[in-house]
Amino acid sequence: MRILGVDPGSAVCGYGVVEGRPGAGSFIAAGTIRSASLEAGPKRLRRIHENLLSLIDEYVPEALSLERHFVAINIQSAFRLGEARAMAMLAAAERELPIFEYPPNEVKLCVAGHGHADKAQVKDMVRKMLRLDSAIELADDASDALAIALCHLGRGRLPNLVEAIERVGSRPAAARPRKPRLTPQ
Amino acid sequence: MRILGVDPGSAVCGYGVVEGRPGAGSFIAAGTIRSASLEAGPKRLRRIHENLLSLIDEYVPEALSLERHFVAINIQSAFRLGEARAMAMLAAAERELPIFEYPPNEVKLCVAGHGHADKAQVKDMVRKMLRLDSAIELADDASDALAIALCHLGRGRLPNLVEAIERVGSRPAAARPRKPRLTPQ
Repeated sequence: MRILGVDPGSAVCGYGVVEGRPGAGSFIAAGTIRSASLEAGPKRLRRIHENLLSLIDEYVPEALSLERHFVAINIQSAFRLGEARAMAMLAAAERELPIFEYPPNEVKLCVAGHGHADKAQVKDMVRKMLRLDSAIELADDASDALAIALCHLGRGRLPNLVEAIERVGSRPAAARPRKPRLTPQ
Repeated sequence: MRILGVDPGSAVCGYGVVEGRPGAGSFIAAGTIRSASLEAGPKRLRRIHENLLSLIDEYVPEALSLERHFVAINIQSAFRLGEARAMAMLAAAERELPIFEYPPNEVKLCVAGHGHADKAQVKDMVRKMLRLDSAIELADDASDALAIALCHLGRGRLPNLVEAIERVGSRPAAARPRKPRLTPQ
C-alpha cells in the first residue's frame, strides 16, 4: 500500500510518500511545498493545491493521510491552517483518494512510541523506520509528513509497529535487509 | 463592474452576483451551494469549489468579494470556516480574479448603515438597494453574499452608498448611531 502523508501549513506544506505494510514501510519521496513569503493567500493556496495534485498524479498513492488538529495558537491561525488543510482535502477528493486524519499525538505514538515525542525524536524514528541514509537531508515538515503517512500505514496495527520500532532501532546498519528506494527530488 | 460575493460555510455557501457602480447596483444572480449533511468534508469542499468555478465561468465577474472573519465559536469551527473560505480563495486564484475581504461589520455598515444590523435588516436593505421584486425569495446566505458583493461595489465610496441607502431606504435619521468609519483601501 502506498500512502501520501501531508503536513499542511500555509507557508510550508510538507509531504511524504511511503509504501509497504505495517512495520515495513519504504521511503518513496518527501519534500516541502514552499510559498514566497510575500505571496497573497489565494496564490499560496493555488500553489499548494497544484503541487499536491501533481504529487498524487506522479506517485499514485492509494490514500492520503493528514494531521487532524484540535488546537491552534489563535482563531486567525486556525483559519490559516484550515485553508491549507482544505487544499489537501480537495486534492484527495478530486483524485478520489480516501483521506484519513490522525491527531498529532497518535502520529507521534505510531512512530516514536509515545505521544509527546519532540520533532527531533520523530525525525530520528522516521529515518530509522524507513532506513534512510544519513546523507539524505529531511526538512522538519517533510519528516512530519512521512510520520503521518507511516501512521496510516500502521493503522490499527500499533503493536506490530512498536515491535518494528524496537527491531529497527536496535539493529546495526549492516544487518538491514534492503536498501531504501530513493526517488530523486 | 460585476462582483461575485461569497458567504462561505461548510454546510451552506451563499453567493451573489451584482453589477453596477456605487449606489446603483443591479441584481444578476444569487443562491446557495448546499452540501448533503452526511457528505464527508473533502466531498463537500469539492462541491463548493466546483460550483464556485462554474459560477465564475457563467457570470464572469471582475472581482470576488469575501467576508473576513475574526471570530469563531471555537477552534474547530474556525478550521471548518477556513476550509470553506479556502475554496473561494482558490477558485478566485485559479480564474485570476482579484479577491477582496471585508469584516462582517463593514459589510453591514455598507448595506444597512450601521455595523450591528441583524440578518433581517441586511436582507431588507439588500432587497431595496437591488430593487428586488418581493416575489423573489432570498435565502439568508444568498442575501449575505449579495451584501458582501455590494460592499465591494461601494468600496472606498461609502458616502455614495449611504446616500443611496437614504434614497431607497426607510432608516430614520435618529437610528444612525455615528459617522461611518472609512477604511482606507
